[in-house]
Amino acid sequence: MSASVFNHPVLGSLFGDEEIASYLTADADLEAMVAFEVALAEAEAEAGLIAPDDRDAIKARAAAFTPDLAALGAGTARDGVVVPSLLKQLRTGWEEPAAEALHKGATSQDVIDASMAMRLQGVALVLDRRLAAITDAFTRWSLDAGKTRVVAHTRMQTATETAFARKITSWSDPLVRCRLRREEIAPRAFALRIGGAVGDRAAFGDKAEAIATGVATRLGLPAAASALHSERDGIAELAGWLSMVTGALGKFGQDTALSLQTEVGELTLAGGGGSSAMPHKSNPISAEILVTLARFNATLVSGLHQALVHENERSGAAWSLEWMLLPQMAMAAGAATRIAEDLIGRLSLVER
Amino acid sequence: MSASVFNHPVLGSLFGDEEIASYLTADADLEAMVAFEVALAEAEAEAGLIAPDDRDAIKARAAAFTPDLAALGAGTARDGVVVPSLLKQLRTGWEEPAAEALHKGATSQDVIDASMAMRLQGVALVLDRRLAAITDAFTRWSLDAGKTRVVAHTRMQTATETAFARKITSWSDPLVRCRLRREEIAPRAFALRIGGAVGDRAAFGDKAEAIATGVATRLGLPAAASALHSERDGIAELAGWLSMVTGALGKFGQDTALSLQTEVGELTLAGGGGSSAMPHKSNPISAEILVTLARFNATLVSGLHQALVHENERSGAAWSLEWMLLPQMAMAAGAATRIAEDLIGRLSLVER
Amino acid sequence: MSASVFNHPVLGSLFGDEEIASYLTADADLEAMVAFEVALAEAEAEAGLIAPDDRDAIKARAAAFTPDLAALGAGTARDGVVVPSLLKQLRTGWEEPAAEALHKGATSQDVIDASMAMRLQGVALVLDRRLAAITDAFTRWSLDAGKTRVVAHTRMQTATETAFARKITSWSDPLVRCRLRREEIAPRAFALRIGGAVGDRAAFGDKAEAIATGVATRLGLPAAASALHSERDGIAELAGWLSMVTGALGKFGQDTALSLQTEVGELTLAGGGGSSAMPHKSNPISAEILVTLARFNATLVSGLHQALVHENERSGAAWSLEWMLLPQMAMAAGAATRIAEDLIGRLSLVER
Amino acid sequence: MSASVFNHPVLGSLFGDEEIASYLTADADLEAMVAFEVALAEAEAEAGLIAPDDRDAIKARAAAFTPDLAALGAGTARDGVVVPSLLKQLRTGWEEPAAEALHKGATSQDVIDASMAMRLQGVALVLDRRLAAITDAFTRWSLDAGKTRVVAHTRMQTATETAFARKITSWSDPLVRCRLRREEIAPRAFALRIGGAVGDRAAFGDKAEAIATGVATRLGLPAAASALHSERDGIAELAGWLSMVTGALGKFGQDTALSLQTEVGELTLAGGGGSSAMPHKSNPISAEILVTLARFNATLVSGLHQALVHENERSGAAWSLEWMLLPQMAMAAGAATRIAEDLIGRLSLVER
Repeated sequence: MSASVFNHPVLGSLFGDEEIASYLTADADLEAMVAFEVALAEAEAEAGLIAPDDRDAIKARAAAFTPDLAALGAGTARDGVVVPSLLKQLRTGWEEPAAEALHKGATSQDVIDASMAMRLQGVALVLDRRLAAITDAFTRWSLDAGKTRVVAHTRMQTATETAFARKITSWSDPLVRCRLRREEIAPRAFALRIGGAVGDRAAFGDKAEAIATGVATRLGLPAAASALHSERDGIAELAGWLSMVTGALGKFGQDTALSLQTEVGELTLAGGGGSSAMPHKSNPISAEILVTLARFNATLVSGLHQALVHENERSGAAWSLEWMLLPQMAMAAGAATRIAEDLIGRLSLVER
Repeated sequence: MSASVFNHPVLGSLFGDEEIASYLTADADLEAMVAFEVALAEAEAEAGLIAPDDRDAIKARAAAFTPDLAALGAGTARDGVVVPSLLKQLRTGWEEPAAEALHKGATSQDVIDASMAMRLQGVALVLDRRLAAITDAFTRWSLDAGKTRVVAHTRMQTATETAFARKITSWSDPLVRCRLRREEIAPRAFALRIGGAVGDRAAFGDKAEAIATGVATRLGLPAAASALHSERDGIAELAGWLSMVTGALGKFGQDTALSLQTEVGELTLAGGGGSSAMPHKSNPISAEILVTLARFNATLVSGLHQALVHENERSGAAWSLEWMLLPQMAMAAGAATRIAEDLIGRLSLVER
Repeated sequence: MSASVFNHPVLGSLFGDEEIASYLTADADLEAMVAFEVALAEAEAEAGLIAPDDRDAIKARAAAFTPDLAALGAGTARDGVVVPSLLKQLRTGWEEPAAEALHKGATSQDVIDASMAMRLQGVALVLDRRLAAITDAFTRWSLDAGKTRVVAHTRMQTATETAFARKITSWSDPLVRCRLRREEIAPRAFALRIGGAVGDRAAFGDKAEAIATGVATRLGLPAAASALHSERDGIAELAGWLSMVTGALGKFGQDTALSLQTEVGELTLAGGGGSSAMPHKSNPISAEILVTLARFNATLVSGLHQALVHENERSGAAWSLEWMLLPQMAMAAGAATRIAEDLIGRLSLVER
Repeated sequence: MSASVFNHPVLGSLFGDEEIASYLTADADLEAMVAFEVALAEAEAEAGLIAPDDRDAIKARAAAFTPDLAALGAGTARDGVVVPSLLKQLRTGWEEPAAEALHKGATSQDVIDASMAMRLQGVALVLDRRLAAITDAFTRWSLDAGKTRVVAHTRMQTATETAFARKITSWSDPLVRCRLRREEIAPRAFALRIGGAVGDRAAFGDKAEAIATGVATRLGLPAAASALHSERDGIAELAGWLSMVTGALGKFGQDTALSLQTEVGELTLAGGGGSSAMPHKSNPISAEILVTLARFNATLVSGLHQALVHENERSGAAWSLEWMLLPQMAMAAGAATRIAEDLIGRLSLVER
């Protein structure tokens, strides 16, 4: 037990995922935030809102910047967001007007949400690549063993026989659909949220759209027609997507655990888990953890829907709830895809 | 308090929605189930699996059928599903072979899931029509009062001024996106699920695809390439959609309740609720209920994601959980759209 | 599918519970509300706040009262609560001052919460009686078959043998603890909540404590030292209790479904459910529904904890959420206890 | 954003809690596990199950033990639990029979659950001490300012005036009840779970009760009459308790944020949070985070109730879900109590 299984020194080997975790570190977050400020300076310079020299100064400073994490933590405890402290560090000892040009017209939420979008977009692409690998593995398994007749089970009772391919389809098809869904939700889930103090882009004047588009293009994010600060449907949708991924893999895990039951023995598992009391056992750890991860995300998705009730132009309460839940859901989806891919390779259908 | 607020003799006036409820009655369910059996008979006759005479007999019997609800209830308590009893009633006193032609190659889940898909597709279309009306009303309000400057609030504190149109956008845009989402999810959420006993369409032989398409076309449902019995991602996705609808309206309700606060007074409300102890009060009932409905669906959506862990070819446990949750989420979305449309018409922006 | 499975004409046979439902009807609610007004009048007359004649007039009118449900519904849609309309009906055509003496110093929440407490206290006692019956049945089963050696399963694999009594203990002991818990939570979960307009009992003056105690005693509820209007921890605690009951029975259901698997066959079930496609099957419907009900309450309990964030002296939003969730959790606990008691009687351990 | 806000280098200052975290580290977990093995050896030596010399050898080795975390992680990834690897490390290079005496008759779950109970019991005591401090602070505030008349708000509208003490009571009383609840749930929530391979304590023979009591006494845990491995009601109950703590403080936070609204101004806050776009603002960060933490735990509590459906003698899936959720709920309760205590000291009632 530890506060988080995902980066626990021991349990992290079971629940963690290094590749996904790399998107969710403080370092990655700060790096993305600084990238936002640079993209903003570039777009603002292009639109004539700040001077080219200031843009260059911002870029130079950003390139050389090393954050003081302890001071950022202290600032966050006070301000609820890291951005004021981060800007203060970036501006330390800086001559005007470049200091003023930095973050011009933007607000903390612009920065934090952009960083979140950039990194979660990356996470979703990693997951998509893994889903492709998993569905490929299922296809190969189906080509290999799909015609074998197995006993179907409905309501926990044996029913008639069916082709093993039928079972594989029920594990694989939801993942194929999740790949399609990622494309559908991307313009909403990963849209650049930029709106300034109260979300009306007022400080950008008639350059608002140009700047928003300019920043989005530079950061590789979909542009949105408005600020989206208080519209969190894209976030809830992403949470639902992450939970659909873990849910589909949880069904695969549950079916596998049922098939691996000693009395059923339809599948065999290479490299099962050992027991401290019964050394002969081969426990279907991976299959069970897939169920665990599905139920974990199914639990957390509720909180992201609660966070849709985002009061006024910015809700500190609802917004912070996203920070507590969404990265963990991404980690769970990471772990589930990592585990599932490995598990498929260790399973064999028992020919009768 | 009653077991369900949606059809409560008193609270139903507050939480209910007659139009949506009409899709969710036992009568509507049974009617759709019988329609499925008719469509199946037609498609099977077309494919040569049953005789035209049997098809006609099935159609005639279906047209004249009046279910015995008490007997169906008793059968459901025993079988966990209504279909065996329903078929028995349909076949009562019937000569073979039409009795055998009825439901040929199908299973209970085919019938129940098809009825669910037909009716939830109808619900979604009603909601879509209402979302259109609501976003129209927001647009009209914005044309009328959108340029008025109002005080924005971030983190529960007054921030700078912004146009009222900005607030309206944040209420309306998520609903516009929900209309788009409905189109995206429809092929998955409302797909015909038909697969026979264990989901492999085996009893349909080489006519499986023709029959599945034939039934889907007749019922106005999207056809799916496979049975989908144990793949519930389309259901979880629909639940997420319903909760995104109520969530967006919950934000509107929360903002409205905050704006209607006595001390804030940015909006006024015609026809507020009375108090038994303080007759002078005008309570923002509708606004509060929108928040309630958002939190209700945000709670229930979790259960539909839990139900993704659907074991083997059919899970009675996970499947039944859908029946307990999904219709209520539809009702909540119905109530929220009904209330929101009414509420907009009773709100006025206070000009200062 | 219907909006609520609990009072559905067909599915109600599977999910419903007539005894519990009787506490949750509109009629029972209104009856309890009127009983509150009578108890209040009696306590206020005793304390000298209203005249004995007015008390008698209130009692007489209450005894003869027949509510107009349609009008109560219309009032509830407007006011968010039924009480103003209910009082108006009670007062129709009434001479002062008895009309003024009715509900003196009270507020809608006093009435509604008292009714809720009275009825849920009754529900909890019914459930407690059933838990006693279930644990008795487990004890009898254990006396009968407890010494039989069965194969234990850990992590879905056969482990060593153990006595069947060990399994029964794991089903029964949590229910025994739930009986103890009911006693512990009763003073908080069923406490009379009475506080007047803003919860300070101001209108009762120095008779506040006497009146609160007097009403509580008459209604058979625990008295509380303060109004509790906005303190909902007792409600969340009750929700947790209901979910612990269904959770424990859900484990029993899950274990039973696993033991009844065709390949395991440790238990046999008399009267299993039939299938429309595979007539030979005997489906463990009751066992599955116990799992369903556990997951249902595990889902809903979250909403009652969300409702702890009850803003200010009264939150229409958070309070109404309780009405949507808590009665259903009570119904689910009712169904689970009803089903479990029946299921135990239909199970037999297979002697080897 | 990071995988976990609780130990994030930056956000940890806002959401973290060092004192609570100290109970939830891998080191604390391993230390408690080793303490369990020592207590077991002592109790078994006392009962005559192992030799005094072996007990002494075990104690000596435990005292000198330094775990190899990387190897423990690798073992956990394989076995799903750390215990087999931990035992292997403890036994490395060890002469029989002491190696065999170690962990004699126990199973992984005995060790892990005992460690969890020991540490969560400690967490609960820390929280209890803080709840005492918070309720004391509320009492002092009430003595100081409780008689001041403030405007009550019901349903987001001003109602009548009431004493400020009334508001304080509604924040403080639920916490007082939570302190009482901790005492009630302790025998169930923190009970020693010890049962051996399949939970029947078979390997302890007729010394089972003596050993279970002996271990419990040595570890300072309540003894239980049976193994409890698959009975998780005490865990769900603890989760509910943690969420009742955060829920009550969330209400305090919500009320505070509402009172601190610019237009309301009933309270003032020293040391509010700054904004990157609007330097004049004083944001009620702490109040908002209390709401966030309440909604976080209200979300997670659902998962612990789902985990009540713990199949057979040990469910890897349901058990692991506890590891993912419960420590985080403890951290959230830690953060909420820490923040609330600080917040009270920074709030002042505005005298009018």
